[in-house]
Amino acid sequence: MFNVTGILKRLVIGRAMRSEELHETLLPKRLALPVFASDPLSSVAYATQEILLVLTLGGLAYLHFAPWIAAAVVALMTVVVLSYRQVVHAYPSGGGSYEVVSTNLGPSAGLVVAASLLVDYVMTVAVSVASGVDNIISALPQLAPHRVLLAIGFVAALTATNLRGVRESGRAFAAPTYLFVGGVLIMVITGLVRCALGDAPVAESAGYGITAAPADADLAGPALLMLVLRAFSSGCTALTGVEAISNGVPAFRKPKSANAAATLAVMGITAVVLFVGVTALALITKVRITGDPCRLTGLTGSCSAYTQRTVIAQIAAAVFGGEHSLGFYLIQTVTALVLILAANTAFNGFPLLASILAQHRFLPHQLHNRGDRLAFSNGILALAIVACLLLWGFRANVTSLIHLYILGVFTSFTLSQLGMVRHWNGELRAEHAPARRRHHHTARVINTIGAVVTGLVLVIVLATKFTQGAWLAVLAAVVLWVMMRGIRRHYDVTSAELAVTDPKAELTSPSRVLAIVLVSTLHKPTLRALAYARALRPDRLEALTVSVDRDEAAALRGRWEEYGIEVPLKVIDSPYREVTRPVVEYVRSVRRESPRDIVAVIVPEYVVGHWWENLLHNQSALWLKNRLLFTPGVMVTSVPWQLTSAAHADRPAARAPGSVRRGEPRGPAPRRHR
Amino acid sequence: MFNVTGILKRLVIGRAMRSEELHETLLPKRLALPVFASDPLSSVAYATQEILLVLTLGGLAYLHFAPWIAAAVVALMTVVVLSYRQVVHAYPSGGGSYEVVSTNLGPSAGLVVAASLLVDYVMTVAVSVASGVDNIISALPQLAPHRVLLAIGFVAALTATNLRGVRESGRAFAAPTYLFVGGVLIMVITGLVRCALGDAPVAESAGYGITAAPADADLAGPALLMLVLRAFSSGCTALTGVEAISNGVPAFRKPKSANAAATLAVMGITAVVLFVGVTALALITKVRITGDPCRLTGLTGSCSAYTQRTVIAQIAAAVFGGEHSLGFYLIQTVTALVLILAANTAFNGFPLLASILAQHRFLPHQLHNRGDRLAFSNGILALAIVACLLLWGFRANVTSLIHLYILGVFTSFTLSQLGMVRHWNGELRAEHAPARRRHHHTARVINTIGAVVTGLVLVIVLATKFTQGAWLAVLAAVVLWVMMRGIRRHYDVTSAELAVTDPKAELTSPSRVLAIVLVSTLHKPTLRALAYARALRPDRLEALTVSVDRDEAAALRGRWEEYGIEVPLKVIDSPYREVTRPVVEYVRSVRRESPRDIVAVIVPEYVVGHWWENLLHNQSALWLKNRLLFTPGVMVTSVPWQLTSAAHADRPAARAPGSVRRGEPRGPAPRRHR
Repeated sequence: MFNVTGILKRLVIGRAMRSEELHETLLPKRLALPVFASDPLSSVAYATQEILLVLTLGGLAYLHFAPWIAAAVVALMTVVVLSYRQVVHAYPSGGGSYEVVSTNLGPSAGLVVAASLLVDYVMTVAVSVASGVDNIISALPQLAPHRVLLAIGFVAALTATNLRGVRESGRAFAAPTYLFVGGVLIMVITGLVRCALGDAPVAESAGYGITAAPADADLAGPALLMLVLRAFSSGCTALTGVEAISNGVPAFRKPKSANAAATLAVMGITAVVLFVGVTALALITKVRITGDPCRLTGLTGSCSAYTQRTVIAQIAAAVFGGEHSLGFYLIQTVTALVLILAANTAFNGFPLLASILAQHRFLPHQLHNRGDRLAFSNGILALAIVACLLLWGFRANVTSLIHLYILGVFTSFTLSQLGMVRHWNGELRAEHAPARRRHHHTARVINTIGAVVTGLVLVIVLATKFTQGAWLAVLAAVVLWVMMRGIRRHYDVTSAELAVTDPKAELTSPSRVLAIVLVSTLHKPTLRALAYARALRPDRLEALTVSVDRDEAAALRGRWEEYGIEVPLKVIDSPYREVTRPVVEYVRSVRRESPRDIVAVIVPEYVVGHWWENLLHNQSALWLKNRLLFTPGVMVTSVPWQLTSAAHADRPAARAPGSVRRGEPRGPAPRRHR
Repeated sequence: MFNVTGILKRLVIGRAMRSEELHETLLPKRLALPVFASDPLSSVAYATQEILLVLTLGGLAYLHFAPWIAAAVVALMTVVVLSYRQVVHAYPSGGGSYEVVSTNLGPSAGLVVAASLLVDYVMTVAVSVASGVDNIISALPQLAPHRVLLAIGFVAALTATNLRGVRESGRAFAAPTYLFVGGVLIMVITGLVRCALGDAPVAESAGYGITAAPADADLAGPALLMLVLRAFSSGCTALTGVEAISNGVPAFRKPKSANAAATLAVMGITAVVLFVGVTALALITKVRITGDPCRLTGLTGSCSAYTQRTVIAQIAAAVFGGEHSLGFYLIQTVTALVLILAANTAFNGFPLLASILAQHRFLPHQLHNRGDRLAFSNGILALAIVACLLLWGFRANVTSLIHLYILGVFTSFTLSQLGMVRHWNGELRAEHAPARRRHHHTARVINTIGAVVTGLVLVIVLATKFTQGAWLAVLAAVVLWVMMRGIRRHYDVTSAELAVTDPKAELTSPSRVLAIVLVSTLHKPTLRALAYARALRPDRLEALTVSVDRDEAAALRGRWEEYGIEVPLKVIDSPYREVTRPVVEYVRSVRRESPRDIVAVIVPEYVVGHWWENLLHNQSALWLKNRLLFTPGVMVTSVPWQLTSAAHADRPAARAPGSVRRGEPRGPAPRRHR
């Protein structure tokens, strides 16, 4: 069994790596772009669609707001990218927004950012995978019933890829991202050229009308503004993941900051071009899309049986000549691939941030341990599990999931820009060279604009999305925030308690050792324990048994004498069939009598090799040892006796190195019985 | 937390009992009848219905077979009760069928019976509870959507009652059983009297017709025979649980056998009277019931919305004046109660049988331990869990579940009657007194008839039910059988290996003790471990640390010297960030150098009080200790250091006695960290 799991692990995760190999996993720009930017790039595939979905709530007439909303999103993207270039230069150590805010606005504000980002990383995985599955279903509608299963399967595949380590992830994900960017660019150019030549492509749904949703018909004044703001909020999904590069600076090759800033710029320009192109084509081809297909007019057949394709699928079909054209299938393939891989941005960001938080003792230590392949395995697994739960709970529905999204992103945008403003204030106080001061002034202006704009968007998003599901994301972030503070407090209290105060006194040995061998029956393990206990030459040695059955106890005493065991045997009666309590009480009474001595409790155990064998033996030795650990002045010694079946599990020099640091066993765990 | 669970446990389970109190839980006949016979008595509530459900597959015309099938069931019941009276007298020790077959036909055949019975006990719980819920829904149709939840809730309630111990169970269940018997008798007499007076009651469904199921229309010859045999198989559910009394003889007051035989006779007569009465009334009132309501003709409204009441509910409504009469509600209440409590027969039988099997080392030891209230707690819990899974998997549908049922019962009937024949053969060989020989001859004739008849029924049940679900029960029994043999083999091998062969040699102490203190950081627990290790005065003492980070190791060495610790510190490098493997390898190398000595590995640990605190600390100490137990010639010593939070969990003399024998912790388990 061990062999199989060990080999499987090697196959999935790859060869274990030495700590010194860490620098080899650094990323060149051409790999960093797909690794960190597949999220903002791929959101082109759904950002336009989400804008249209909201606007068509009011009917087709409201679509004329779409260009303006797209323009606002582009402006916002520009501001955010410019702002984050400042962050990357000022903080090359990769804490990203978390580090910026912690340093400049204090650890509590930093934790707000951390909690928001952790929640949004999870949402990135869920939304991207769900949207990827949507695009697969657009090409292969017969897969529609398996939506959730597909989504969870893709998360599992991503998890395995990421457990192999950062660099391999970059390689696996570079091609699809570049293919997606290239494919969508070709699609946009083809569409625009056809349009310029007077042969504008027409979407399959262009002929349909859309009736307004009852609550959103004939809007005016504040209600209309609200609808437009909701559409804008949805469009802001295009901005998610921009901060991933700033969190991942340490993964870049040197000069880290410059490379990261350049990657950020390329990413921003590409995302803007794709987003504008797709939105323009959606309007040109007259794509009709709505949250409820039964509001479509002009349908032939039942509305409930009609499956709407995604916006990008409809555009691809229109531009390349129908839903059976090669171009359509190619675009759908790379779109689905890049969306599912966009989740990878979170698989890079989440474990890194969790590891930094663990290092700062806001999350459990285990999240800071690198796995065999130098990836943060525990963080990767945590992310995958929560994302799968979300996908399952929301039936992998993009529009439901998207309501929980982007709130965290804009919280961290706003706070980190605020933090940067404060950072430049500090720098300006310390700096006197005019050229440097000018630079700092410009940077401060950029970050101030960034803070104001993203803060405004945050308010808009909160106002328009809170009741639609965003409350859940807020709640999750608050719970995380409280939990992380609690964890930090626990670690602080513990390490204060454990700190050495008086080494001389603490190193003073107790005067005597009183040894007690626990006996249940007289078999080889017991005799070995007695022999070992004698080898320790304690000041006093006795054997202790708990009698739950008088006959058994008498038989035990008989064999004790028959074997000529010289250690005195003490029998405690236990009419209530307990074992642990009488033993603990006896040990305490011994301690009370001689408080300056220590009691060494020696437990004979036999060790079996198969996990299932443990089900066949009482676990009383384990419980007893656990209970005794609570008793002050006691040391608990196991004397193991290895059964034949345990031998196969004892392979100290197993095939491959690695894996143990994060608390994972090399083979099946041995088990103990008294 | 501990307090609450402790108090809750006392409230649900009651005060713990001393082992000597066992005899106080013996049952008088008036309590033994409801405890052991609620299953066969309550099956009256569904046996008739299952016969009708099968017959109406062929349409209403086939209902004229019903009286003949009922007569066959009555005859079978008589044979089985008479046969089991012989068993009770011959084997008063309560192994029931299992003991009879093991003794007379060998342990493998005995295990077949045991496996069959274990499966059928589970089915008893599932079928009885599901049928009880059906009768509740007959009275309160608005509960229909909560069928599964109700069923699982009742199993949970039964589990709690049974964890309180046998006698209390008897008390809790006596009243409903007697009320059910009385209520159904009154219903039958009232119905028959009304019929005799010319005012025959008419069921609510009497006006409907039933169209034959397509596969079963116009049957003749073998197909018709098959349908009748299927109906008979279904009717045989009335016989389940008859063997419970023979398994439970030791729970009777003295004279145990006579009392058990008398109870068996009363149970048989009562069951026959009720079954005949209900079947007669079902035919008189013209109850129409079918597996698929859409085969009913003459319905007003949609067939899919029509909820059929159970047969007993329809009769009660007809006899007592409608489904809002007091009589109807009373009958439904006691029927539902007794059905749910019938599951209790299995809650008595299953743990007792499992305990006997555990004593014979065919099942894990744990099933032989009595809990606080002298009931076999682990067996009760195992039964409850499997039954809940079945109820959940089959959506608490009686007709689906019933296909898995009674196969095991008839397997054990047949084998135990065969065993009894062999038993009398043996007795006859040894016996020479003519009066005793006559008795044995008569008994052998009874058991031979029993064996032939039940064997025939077993074949019929297998033939008619195998493809309908009984294969699952067969598979489960086969798996159990194989597993029990494997467990026995494991125990035999283990105890042979552990047996003392040469006490003198095995008691010889090793010549020297080499102590190694494991160090990760220098905190109070480490200093305490060093101090305790010195108190053991080993022949050699050293400290060992694994360096996964050079700077940390250097810092550790610096503080080591600063504190003036005289124990030499050995540092092992671990470039692959492992801890366990280098330590195990080092320990092995020490052992190799001096194979006649023992290595005492001393692990400093700190103990926290809350389970969640363990999530915040690496479990490497635990894994390391586990791995070391596999290494021959090593003893592993934990030196605990109790954090403040551990103090609240350390309550050696907790409020109530009990509970520890079966491996259950008194409070939260303490946890350890290095």
